[in-house]
This record gives sequence, structure tokens and C-alpha cells, in this order.
Amino acid sequence: MNSPSLYCSFYLDLDDIANKIKHSGARTVGLQFPEGLKRSAFFIAGELEKRTSVNIIISGNPCYGACDVDMELMRSVDVLFHFGHSELVKGLDNVIYIETPARTNIKNVLAKAIAELGSGTIGLVTTVQHVHRIDDIKAFIRSKGISYVVGTGDSRIKYPGQILGCNFSAADIPCDQYLYIGSGTFHPLGIAIATKRKVLCADPMTTSIEWVDPDKILRTRCGIIAKCHRADTYGILISTKIGQNRAALAQRMAVLAEKYEKKYIMISLDNITPDALMQFKMNAFVNTACPRIAIDNAGMFSAPVLTPVEFEIALGHKDWNEYVFDEIRD
Amino acid sequence: MNSPSLYCSFYLDLDDIANKIKHSGARTVGLQFPEGLKRSAFFIAGELEKRTSVNIIISGNPCYGACDVDMELMRSVDVLFHFGHSELVKGLDNVIYIETPARTNIKNVLAKAIAELGSGTIGLVTTVQHVHRIDDIKAFIRSKGISYVVGTGDSRIKYPGQILGCNFSAADIPCDQYLYIGSGTFHPLGIAIATKRKVLCADPMTTSIEWVDPDKILRTRCGIIAKCHRADTYGILISTKIGQNRAALAQRMAVLAEKYEKKYIMISLDNITPDALMQFKMNAFVNTACPRIAIDNAGMFSAPVLTPVEFEIALGHKDWNEYVFDEIRD
Repeated sequence: MNSPSLYCSFYLDLDDIANKIKHSGARTVGLQFPEGLKRSAFFIAGELEKRTSVNIIISGNPCYGACDVDMELMRSVDVLFHFGHSELVKGLDNVIYIETPARTNIKNVLAKAIAELGSGTIGLVTTVQHVHRIDDIKAFIRSKGISYVVGTGDSRIKYPGQILGCNFSAADIPCDQYLYIGSGTFHPLGIAIATKRKVLCADPMTTSIEWVDPDKILRTRCGIIAKCHRADTYGILISTKIGQNRAALAQRMAVLAEKYEKKYIMISLDNITPDALMQFKMNAFVNTACPRIAIDNAGMFSAPVLTPVEFEIALGHKDWNEYVFDEIRD
Repeated sequence: MNSPSLYCSFYLDLDDIANKIKHSGARTVGLQFPEGLKRSAFFIAGELEKRTSVNIIISGNPCYGACDVDMELMRSVDVLFHFGHSELVKGLDNVIYIETPARTNIKNVLAKAIAELGSGTIGLVTTVQHVHRIDDIKAFIRSKGISYVVGTGDSRIKYPGQILGCNFSAADIPCDQYLYIGSGTFHPLGIAIATKRKVLCADPMTTSIEWVDPDKILRTRCGIIAKCHRADTYGILISTKIGQNRAALAQRMAVLAEKYEKKYIMISLDNITPDALMQFKMNAFVNTACPRIAIDNAGMFSAPVLTPVEFEIALGHKDWNEYVFDEIRD
């Protein structure tokens, strides 16, 4: 069992969760973890059972974000703890979000980043894993005499400077370049494409820094859009996940399809997988669910999967220079 | 589009469905198909749209049986048509089951089967694809002067002689041997193991006949049970699918785990996949959902997945000679 070591790489106050359980009077408790934390599920459940006497049920379904609350499990337990994400979906009475901030020393990677960044105001953006360090990050940058700006984002964003894979609203700020503190390149690519400004990625886990290069992903998306040149039959995908449902947008896509004389069906899904889409034998798909699906898994689908704006470009309804990453904003 | 030809291989009265839609006054209609019929989804939706003016949304989630009604889609449409299965889950007001009987000439395969079967009373069993032919089958066998018996099954069974992958109650009949009319060997294997009687499979699709041999599957299951010799940590799986939820059985398995000093966690899932289970790093799993999962996909899981009775055998709570296929009965 490597769970305790994994568990030590982030902050998690099990006594506090146990107190929340006791305070709630719950008899049956659900736990939902993102993929990377599922290995710790057995350890965390065991520790909570030691401290309380409740029945624990763990969600086994894939979990891709705060948008993806296990509603079936929520309905069958008194309290559902959703780990690893900050609150996104409001008004779920018996869901408690447990953020799991990363334990990292960010000073080294910040020093590297500052040396690399040119002059001008920096826009600071980061993910939920590191957003609790935003004051430390600001203090460090201030101590170097560099000016910065932090955005608050829209109502789906909980913390200043926080960005989601589907929401870069906290990057709508006046700055000359961005510093992204976090792992992966998806978030900073979206910002670079949307703002046409340079984004430096600083990963506190690996302490590596890297300027993002949106050209490669734009070429890939251009190729995927071009593949739809002769597509006549489209599947318009609607998610049933509570934080990913954009039924009105799907309806707008259907109206567009009719306008441009494309045939379509509306397909409602929980998890959008290559297997699930393959069954339908459509020429192409338009995805109104999580914006990352089409981008991250582009090579795995048997037919092109477009974001809504890419569908508009494929139809000729929008121009290529209007290209942006799809976002779910309020 | 090969949908029309696929559609021609079974009976489907689209005018009748269109009338049901008009009669219902529905404005939004959901369609749910098993995997093999999803290729016809585009064709069927188009034909229904020609005949009505409703908005159609198709379920893109995997669908494994009448136990697997898309509840999220059901909640978001006025009427949900569930294709390919007979009614199993009662009390869903806006779900209409559309059976899709196979178009086959069964006389040839029946003649082959009769020649192969020995003397004695035949127990007749079949699947929902062919159960509408049960009177033809009976007439044919009667014409050969052979005696037969047909069971009615429990309340999960709609038609005399019908068996499901999770319910062989219609085989609880006094007979010397069984004649199974249908495809695949899962259903007849369960009957052979449960009754210790011979089962002849007659497949109307391929017109092949074959005696089932339960030895191989029993050896496989024995091997999987043996792998649990040192298993200390178990994941007990509970399905959220409406017709597969056996929470009380899962609770009994938890009590047994405690009695035999095994550690366990309860895991709630929609689709039970090798990927989903792998994340949890358990030594083994006990599956209280669809009985077929552990059997059909045995080689794909990273840890042994036991049926409840197999878990009892692994613990030493039951003896190997009490082995049966798991069933979901009333």
C-alpha cells in the first residue's frame, strides 16, 4: 500500500473531515476522488472509519473535476466528500468539497521563472493545487521589484488567480505576459491562444520552466477542422455531468447544423469515450461537454471531435482567426 | 450508412412508435439502444423525425440490458424509448420498452437440434430476441412427437421460456435436457452449471448447434478463486444501474469480510471497467452488479473479480460443490 506516501504529498486534515462527519450526524458517507487520489481511497477510508463509526462508500466512477460530482452516490449517502477540487457547482446541500493543496517548495521554480521573464507586468495564474500559495507567490515577485496582476475570474472561479481547464476568466487581466504555476500545458495553451500573449509555465512538481508554444496545437486543430470538409452527419454531444451540461449551446449547434444543411443527432452522454462515439458511425462530432475532451484525446477518436467554435469554423460560420479554446463560463 | 440493412434484420414498427409519440404528447423524446443497435440510431431517429415533430436525444452511454435504463436521459425527456429488451424495471412512468425480435427462419436449426437431442423431456429456453417464436418452436417440437416443458420464471421474466444473462429462473423446470435457442454460450453455461443437466445450444443466426461444456469455465473460475488465497483487501462493488443494484447483498458481503478478517471498501459504480478498478489497488474485488461482468471480462481485470458466491468459496464460507452462476432474482 503506497497510499500513505501519496497522501503525504498534499495537505489533508483527516481529523477535520472526521469532525465534519460527526458534526453532520451522517450515518452513510460517500467519498469521491479524482483519478490520482483513488490509490489513497483505501487508506483514507480506513483512517476515517477509525475516527468515526459511519459506513463509507467510495465512488468508483471516473472523476474529472468539480464539474463531475457523482450524483447517484450523492443521492444514496448522507454526506458526499468530493476531494481534490474547489467548489464549482453551487447548491448541492450534502456535498462537501475537500481541497488537497500540494506540498511543494515553490521558491526554486519561481526564481528560475523570474530570471526568464522579461520586463513588464506579469499576470499570475495557477491551479487549485497551488492557489493557496498565491500570497507567497505575490510576495516573492514583489520582493524582486516586479509588478504583477491577479484576476478574480467569473462566478465559477473560487480563488483569485485560479484557472480551470474549462475556464480562463481569471486571465482576463491587463498584463504583458503570464506566469502559470502548475503542471501540464493545457491551461496555459488556452490562455496563449485566447490572449495572443506569451505564457511561461513553472511547474512546482518538477521545478521545470517552459514557454508554451500554441502553434503545434493550432496546426492539429486546423487539421481536424479540415477533415470535416465533407462531413454531412454530425453527432452533437451533450453531457449529463452536472457541471458540464450546456444544453442551450447544443441547441444552438443544432440550429447552425440545420442552417448549413448538415444532418445531425443529439447524443446525451456521461463519459465521452472513443468507444462510445464509434458505435454511432457519424462523420464527425460536436462536443458541448468538457472542452478538454476534444483536445486531450484528439488522436483516439475514430471521427473528428470538434469544439463548438471549431464547428462554426468548419461550417464557414466563423473565420479561423476567431479561433479560441472552448470554455465553460457563466 | 448501413443502418437500413441492420434495421431489416429485426422487427421494428416505426409507425407504431411514431403513433406512441404523438399519443403521448411528448415534445422531447429519448432513444436508448443496446450497443449492436446504436449504428441504426441515426436512421431510426431520422425516420421518427419525419413522422413527428419532436426533438430527439439519443443516449450515448453503454447499454447492457433492460437493467440499464439511462436514468439521466429519462429525467430530461418526456418519453424514453428503450430498445432491444423486454421490460424488467417496473414503475418507470415515462419509459417505453421496444422489443426488437429477430427476423430468422428457425426451422432449419430446430431440425438439426431435434436430430441431436436424445430421448426425454426437453426444457425450452430462449432469449428476448427469439422468445416471440416460442409457440412456433413448441409446435415444431410437438410435431416430432417429443415432449417439452416451458418455465414461466420469476417476476423479472416477462415471457414463458425467456432467460436473461442474470436470471435463469425459467429453467427451474422438470426436464431431462435443455434446448437453448439463441446466440452465445453464457446463458446455457449458467443453466448447465446450476442444473447439472445437458444443454444444447441452437443458434438461429448461424444455424449451428453445440452442446455446452461447463468444464472450461469452471476451471477458469476455480483458478480465479484460488488467486484470492492471500487477498486481504477487497473492493465490494455496488452498481448504481437501476436493475443491477444489490445494496443488501453488498452489505452481506461486507459482514462476511469482517467475519473472516478481511479488509474491504465499498465502491459504488456505474460502468465496471478494468480501468476503473485498477485505480484502487485492491487485492481482489467482489462484484454485486451484473453477474456477467466477472465472467465475460475475466482476463481483462488486473485483480480477481469474484461473484458473491465465489467470494464465499474463497473465504471457505461455502464449499466448491455449491458453485453456481450468480443470478439476480426476485
